[in-house]
Amino acid sequence: MLRVTKIFRFETAHAIFGYCGSCKNIHGHSYVLHVTVQQANPNEGFLDGTGFVMDFKDLKRIVKAQVVDKMDHCIILSEAYLAQNPHLKSLENLDIWPIEPTAENILLKVKSAIEGAMPPEVKLCRLKLYETADSYAEWEA
Amino acid sequence: MLRVTKIFRFETAHAIFGYCGSCKNIHGHSYVLHVTVQQANPNEGFLDGTGFVMDFKDLKRIVKAQVVDKMDHCIILSEAYLAQNPHLKSLENLDIWPIEPTAENILLKVKSAIEGAMPPEVKLCRLKLYETADSYAEWEA
Amino acid sequence: MLRVTKIFRFETAHAIFGYCGSCKNIHGHSYVLHVTVQQANPNEGFLDGTGFVMDFKDLKRIVKAQVVDKMDHCIILSEAYLAQNPHLKSLENLDIWPIEPTAENILLKVKSAIEGAMPPEVKLCRLKLYETADSYAEWEA
Repeated sequence: MLRVTKIFRFETAHAIFGYCGSCKNIHGHSYVLHVTVQQANPNEGFLDGTGFVMDFKDLKRIVKAQVVDKMDHCIILSEAYLAQNPHLKSLENLDIWPIEPTAENILLKVKSAIEGAMPPEVKLCRLKLYETADSYAEWEA
Repeated sequence: MLRVTKIFRFETAHAIFGYCGSCKNIHGHSYVLHVTVQQANPNEGFLDGTGFVMDFKDLKRIVKAQVVDKMDHCIILSEAYLAQNPHLKSLENLDIWPIEPTAENILLKVKSAIEGAMPPEVKLCRLKLYETADSYAEWEA
Repeated sequence: MLRVTKIFRFETAHAIFGYCGSCKNIHGHSYVLHVTVQQANPNEGFLDGTGFVMDFKDLKRIVKAQVVDKMDHCIILSEAYLAQNPHLKSLENLDIWPIEPTAENILLKVKSAIEGAMPPEVKLCRLKLYETADSYAEWEA
């Protein structure tokens, strides 16, 4: 089984509604995202033609357009957070979610944003999101 | 399937009894440990409430108390090693094990030290231990 | 299940025949290769004796001899590439392949070069190859 992964970075702020601790206030992370795809129809031998599972540049283009360009330099807050802090609704770079923007939920958002954009020869199989240098979340199909 | 991982560091010395090479003498490593948990009852959708599989701070607290605070700045030696080197028994920071303290066995010790301390909503699923910058061992459930 | 991994580095040039983009010209990468083996007959308990799945030094010796010493500071080009660029056949450090030397195909070459050289107590289970700092391919058994 062959897989290829491309790594992305985006700088995004968030806050967690209902959290008892410093994460309840708006703060940011330098997120590092690993996006992994595998062959939709794996075979065991060497790869013919140009020899790619998927061209890294195609993977980069899709994730940049669907995820990085949208989340980078945004503040993600939940509807619940804004209901309690209505003065924040005027923020220019606000992305409002129905759920809390934890690393886990960001992964699931990334998944739904990109899996439909993949070409038929591959499928999205794994996502990994570093929230800090020593904390990460993963989704696996 | 969602997982979360927290990374820890500890500075520990060891020696391998019966090893034919420089590892038979006491030396140390800057160990880097990845501790991964997954949902005990995975569901496919977004995470409600505060949106965590497990709060990184809770994972950090458990592993710090059960592993890092105990192993950091220790010398781990086996009973067999000390039987052959009885003068080392007076070392102040000694942790004596019935088996050799290789990266593999340290992982299994970490596993038994923390899996009982996890809250019921998660289970320990993976451990990864860098012994050097280019050598690591892994345990997976 | 226990696994151990050793990381290797080699500096190698390649070009991709038929690629529409800058990868069609000879260029190089600082490849980083993770080679992972697991116990051929896994057991659940602590490891007896010297406590290794496989001594990191033995893994290093095999991969260095079979892969790093052969690929480091080489130019890998396909037969198709050389058919179109016959003047390159005089290059001193040339390694000619029947398929294109993408990260994916390099992984499969590494696999066939080392799996037969592993001792019976382990089996090769995973390879990971960073082509750049933010692009990698993986093979898993």
